[in-house]
Amino acid sequence: MNSSSSDLATRPSVYWIGDIAGDLILLDQTKLPGSLVSETCKTVQQVWTAIKQLKVRGAPAIGIAAGFGVVVAAQVHREKPLDQFRTALVQEADYLATSRPTAVNLFWALDRMKKVVNEVKATSSKELSESLLKEALAIQAEDRDMCHAIGRHGATLFKDGDGILTHCNAGGLATAEYGTALAVIFTCQDQGKKVHVFVDETRPLLQGARLTAWELQQRKVPATLICDNMAGQVMKQGKIQGVVVGADRIAANGDAANKIGTYGVAVLAAYHKIPFYVAAPSSTFDLTLADGSGIPIEERNSTEITEAFGVRTAPEGIACYNPAFDVTPASLIRGIITEKGVISPVTTENVKRVLGSN
Amino acid sequence: MNSSSSDLATRPSVYWIGDIAGDLILLDQTKLPGSLVSETCKTVQQVWTAIKQLKVRGAPAIGIAAGFGVVVAAQVHREKPLDQFRTALVQEADYLATSRPTAVNLFWALDRMKKVVNEVKATSSKELSESLLKEALAIQAEDRDMCHAIGRHGATLFKDGDGILTHCNAGGLATAEYGTALAVIFTCQDQGKKVHVFVDETRPLLQGARLTAWELQQRKVPATLICDNMAGQVMKQGKIQGVVVGADRIAANGDAANKIGTYGVAVLAAYHKIPFYVAAPSSTFDLTLADGSGIPIEERNSTEITEAFGVRTAPEGIACYNPAFDVTPASLIRGIITEKGVISPVTTENVKRVLGSN
Repeated sequence: MNSSSSDLATRPSVYWIGDIAGDLILLDQTKLPGSLVSETCKTVQQVWTAIKQLKVRGAPAIGIAAGFGVVVAAQVHREKPLDQFRTALVQEADYLATSRPTAVNLFWALDRMKKVVNEVKATSSKELSESLLKEALAIQAEDRDMCHAIGRHGATLFKDGDGILTHCNAGGLATAEYGTALAVIFTCQDQGKKVHVFVDETRPLLQGARLTAWELQQRKVPATLICDNMAGQVMKQGKIQGVVVGADRIAANGDAANKIGTYGVAVLAAYHKIPFYVAAPSSTFDLTLADGSGIPIEERNSTEITEAFGVRTAPEGIACYNPAFDVTPASLIRGIITEKGVISPVTTENVKRVLGSN
Repeated sequence: MNSSSSDLATRPSVYWIGDIAGDLILLDQTKLPGSLVSETCKTVQQVWTAIKQLKVRGAPAIGIAAGFGVVVAAQVHREKPLDQFRTALVQEADYLATSRPTAVNLFWALDRMKKVVNEVKATSSKELSESLLKEALAIQAEDRDMCHAIGRHGATLFKDGDGILTHCNAGGLATAEYGTALAVIFTCQDQGKKVHVFVDETRPLLQGARLTAWELQQRKVPATLICDNMAGQVMKQGKIQGVVVGADRIAANGDAANKIGTYGVAVLAAYHKIPFYVAAPSSTFDLTLADGSGIPIEERNSTEITEAFGVRTAPEGIACYNPAFDVTPASLIRGIITEKGVISPVTTENVKRVLGSN
């Protein structure tokens, strides 16, 4: 399916059309910005593969896709007796959880769906399916509201004329709508604050160049694309007044896992005395982990480094190290912007206090 | 011309074949590691373009190519009367100097060639041409000796089992032979110290992935390729005991211009308490500049960022910032490894003292 870019800019990257017999539609983010291609998921395997291959990416969007994935599972298994139906759905949810190891929103969303599977009183698979769709839509709607709340809290931290650096894509594509890090920027713009965004291209998969640059263009936010290794230079030149990035998992003390390279940006920001913020919904916190040392870091295929977009750019046989994420210690984070407010300074106590509030 | 890789690994990236009627041969580094293609330069324009387009790159190699470029100019203008011959050669040298603005070795080599043009007593253009070829060959031979001396001085700073990170390519391809930063690594290997090299791929043009990884493979040095934004992660994991990079121009106080991203690596190294070294011959110093603020930074075309190797990876119309170099302040450099010894701590006084020694 090809649509005009203005359509897609206002459409979520993951959405459901219709009732329980409806369709899960995913925008294939690996094809952006060259092509705007959507995919309809008819099997759970297809959802799993879409997450694995980064067609769907961004921690909140992965959670939303996984939620709808369980509704797809309900379509597949709808002929089963209710007991077997519930068992099959839990198995499918556990299978979806194996698609990617780092983003906690995936497990969080699937736990919510499994709770519905196991606890909702229903007399038929159809009735349970309706509850599942309702829950998945709720996950999406809550994420949308969270993104807007994150935007409102975060925008208070920036002022007219600021240069803001971001890494990877924590925008509308990565969430139900509006994004997390980019929600802060979009809200600044909505409030009439003129900000200029410097976008790290974000190797190896260039989510900054392909996705963030595209989203900022769609919303007419002034932006400059740089290679990741130019961040230090623009900071040194005084062009950056703050950094804001998303997160894939945050430990109880505020240590935050995000796209590889985020840690380096945080060190550079500290050196240049530039505030470094993480923007993420409360569902990104994994309070079972005291600190970031327990966050599993996904290592991906070396061809992402050696064969950039189909072109071989390194000698055959060279060894590579390709971690998808790194962990930024809380000590380098000025504040974590959540839908419940800004956690600052970032301490275990403040995390608990802000997340516990309403 | 296609040759086996083992041939080319032992052949300089820039060399002269024959007498004054001979040929300047350049290995086209933009084609590596996929193709081993050499180019014979018959015009000064061709030499200028090869430098501009980075077919020849690396500060010392650019200087060597420029030196031979003046010999090519002598071939072109050999029919002129001696006076006009000298004038034409100075003009051609000044033209070659416009190919790239940052690397000081270019101007240094051309100044040496112009000195021969202006000062050597000669009775014919042929006789002057012979002096020019002799000078260009001397520049190359001196660079080779300097590289080996840099390797010897630098190897004392590393020990068996060390992990060493490097950025861009300061290897044999960038010099007459052996390199500057890589000379340190090759000398460690020659001395039986086992080191493991982490290679920053070095966006946008991937000199690390394409050239350094290839050179290390040729010489069987264990190496791991990473994206630039992974340097912080491998430092955090304790895999790096030292950083060594080249330089394109060094000011009197030791501030060093090198490939974009070097500054960021230096900041990361300081944060992780890892020594950061610059390896460069004394010809890289520009003592007319008190510090790095006066070093001109070449800004290159944005398509280097947006169209990586022929594939468009950013939306049309996005603004880019593409500086080719940055300046690392002396305060972040543990030592500068020259052919005359290691300058450490890096101060104006120590620069003067070491460069002034024999």
